[in-house]
Amino acid sequence: MRLDHIGIAVADLETADELFTRLLGRSAYKRETVAEQHVTTSFFRAGEEEAKLEFIAPEGAQGPVQKFLEKRGPGLHHLAFDVDDIVAEMERLAADGFELLQEKPSRGADNKLVCFLHPRSTNGVLVEICQTIRGDE
Amino acid sequence: MRLDHIGIAVADLETADELFTRLLGRSAYKRETVAEQHVTTSFFRAGEEEAKLEFIAPEGAQGPVQKFLEKRGPGLHHLAFDVDDIVAEMERLAADGFELLQEKPSRGADNKLVCFLHPRSTNGVLVEICQTIRGDE
Repeated sequence: MRLDHIGIAVADLETADELFTRLLGRSAYKRETVAEQHVTTSFFRAGEEEAKLEFIAPEGAQGPVQKFLEKRGPGLHHLAFDVDDIVAEMERLAADGFELLQEKPSRGADNKLVCFLHPRSTNGVLVEICQTIRGDE
Repeated sequence: MRLDHIGIAVADLETADELFTRLLGRSAYKRETVAEQHVTTSFFRAGEEEAKLEFIAPEGAQGPVQKFLEKRGPGLHHLAFDVDDIVAEMERLAADGFELLQEKPSRGADNKLVCFLHPRSTNGVLVEICQTIRGDE
């Protein structure tokens, strides 16, 4: 597993983009709406390597990110790790006692299949595993 | 600024080490107590690159990590970015309206000088900037 990105919940992407552009000294390189998750996302490179920051703002009043903002306010939301075979990894984690939040992978941002693990099985950290969608899927 | 590590607050390092060893398929490579911060830390590589996960458990009833656990429970705590010159970066950020939590850098884990920014100036994210201590300091 390799760190792919850090998800950060925000109420408003314009504000977050402006703020983190000033903080990091670089701009967001992509914006993408994920209808299935009721969010719009904005991506920054986290450094010179592959890891990214994914800012996530809710679209509408539904969806888990809106609930997160209402309960905890904006801030760090999840850690995502890239895997080669998400279905095999879901099976391995479930067999090892980790609690998956879904039975099948769903479509995430950034051309990925994603699956979330319940924070109560991961020390309070919402963990996402993700796999890049290849051409034949 | 390059992502250096993600800080995760935990009540107990043994439990966190065991759990994330199973999750990530690799072990912690270092443990270190930072008396000044009232914490003991445990480090995992986050992937094939430089970024790390830093698990942080409080030592004693004082210190900000103990307060964080009492208020929010275990979970994602901060994002740390490596910089070349922490004093110059603190001056730049303060001049740009970011709220520094300290006037001078303090000693952190992993042979670093560190400075934290108040989450209210960074969209709810506790941001650390850090600089590796060189031989002449």
